[in-house]
Amino acid sequence: MENIQDVSIETCTESKYLRPYRLRYKQNGREKIWDVMDTGDSVSILVYNPFRKVFIFVKQFRPAVYSCNSKKYEENGVKKIDLEKYPAKLGVTHELCAGLVDKDCSVIEIAQQELLEELGYKVPLYKIEKITTFRSGVGASGNLQTMFYSEVSDVMKVNAGGGLESEGELIETVEIPVTKGREMIYDESINKPAGMMFGLLWFYENKYKPSGY
Amino acid sequence: MENIQDVSIETCTESKYLRPYRLRYKQNGREKIWDVMDTGDSVSILVYNPFRKVFIFVKQFRPAVYSCNSKKYEENGVKKIDLEKYPAKLGVTHELCAGLVDKDCSVIEIAQQELLEELGYKVPLYKIEKITTFRSGVGASGNLQTMFYSEVSDVMKVNAGGGLESEGELIETVEIPVTKGREMIYDESINKPAGMMFGLLWFYENKYKPSGY
Repeated sequence: MENIQDVSIETCTESKYLRPYRLRYKQNGREKIWDVMDTGDSVSILVYNPFRKVFIFVKQFRPAVYSCNSKKYEENGVKKIDLEKYPAKLGVTHELCAGLVDKDCSVIEIAQQELLEELGYKVPLYKIEKITTFRSGVGASGNLQTMFYSEVSDVMKVNAGGGLESEGELIETVEIPVTKGREMIYDESINKPAGMMFGLLWFYENKYKPSGY
Repeated sequence: MENIQDVSIETCTESKYLRPYRLRYKQNGREKIWDVMDTGDSVSILVYNPFRKVFIFVKQFRPAVYSCNSKKYEENGVKKIDLEKYPAKLGVTHELCAGLVDKDCSVIEIAQQELLEELGYKVPLYKIEKITTFRSGVGASGNLQTMFYSEVSDVMKVNAGGGLESEGELIETVEIPVTKGREMIYDESINKPAGMMFGLLWFYENKYKPSGY
């Protein structure tokens, strides 16, 4: 399986946001190509307030999720989606606070910045604990995500959060009681990624103290 | 946040495998674009043999993971990766048995077909239990993955598995003792997606019977 030869890369589109490139290689003597998209390494942070016993997540409209949950029609040669039939809420996700590793600093510092930008919490580094890393994708993209856990208190809240206006981010923070987190995992009406579900199960196994803090 | 208007779609590349398209919409009156890639809905199956107490996973070379784990250099205008410096094993993943929903049948039937194609197990539908659904991505793609759990026995093994030769698949099956699954979750030297980690924690919480079966 690991008998790979002649790896080379070709750019294959000009999209500004998605930059696919083609990997050409031989596997067991057979020539293969695979189109890859580098979507960037990322961090995510499971945030819990142990004093009020709530998780703090982000909620946002995700165009890709909306598109997958709706059907297109064509009008005057333009493909459209009917918002009456497919309301925007179909594209709303619940996610861990997260961000791309797009600055020249450590992943824990990126996590710290996202806690401030998205949630409005100023959290010292020693309150940010690494859980583990995994692949955010294995097919089209293979980027690494580092997941952290952070316990916060209301005094750390220094602004409203909501993402960077300059980046056009429009993010709501949402608090979910710890007693509701388990059912949220299996509530299929809530769009969410597997990383968040893993993080929640990790929490209940490793951090949860049902009888007081 | 859900104040969205004027959704339309434009094709923006011609890649055969990755077909990005541009979603144009207004959010709170502000015009936005987002490039989306439909990578297809999928199924995954956590497979456990309770008689020999092993998980059965697939192991394969994933070009996208390899590319993310290695650095490129340029030679005569061609970008390459040096396999001496970056051995192919950097692109090998452990994953749940999985596949795309690319046929006109139910997701549980797709799961049944993947169990046969990838692992070589002929499993009756009533032995395939749905766990839940989630988004395999929320940024570039927003496709849905349905995760199943299946308990198998050695008598169900009818062929070697390994994927479809016609599709160029080259997949190894790998058995991991149930006593090693937990440490595997946090072993960062093993490339794996978050869905697999969620599936394993779900198993230990819902199915594991340490003292015999």
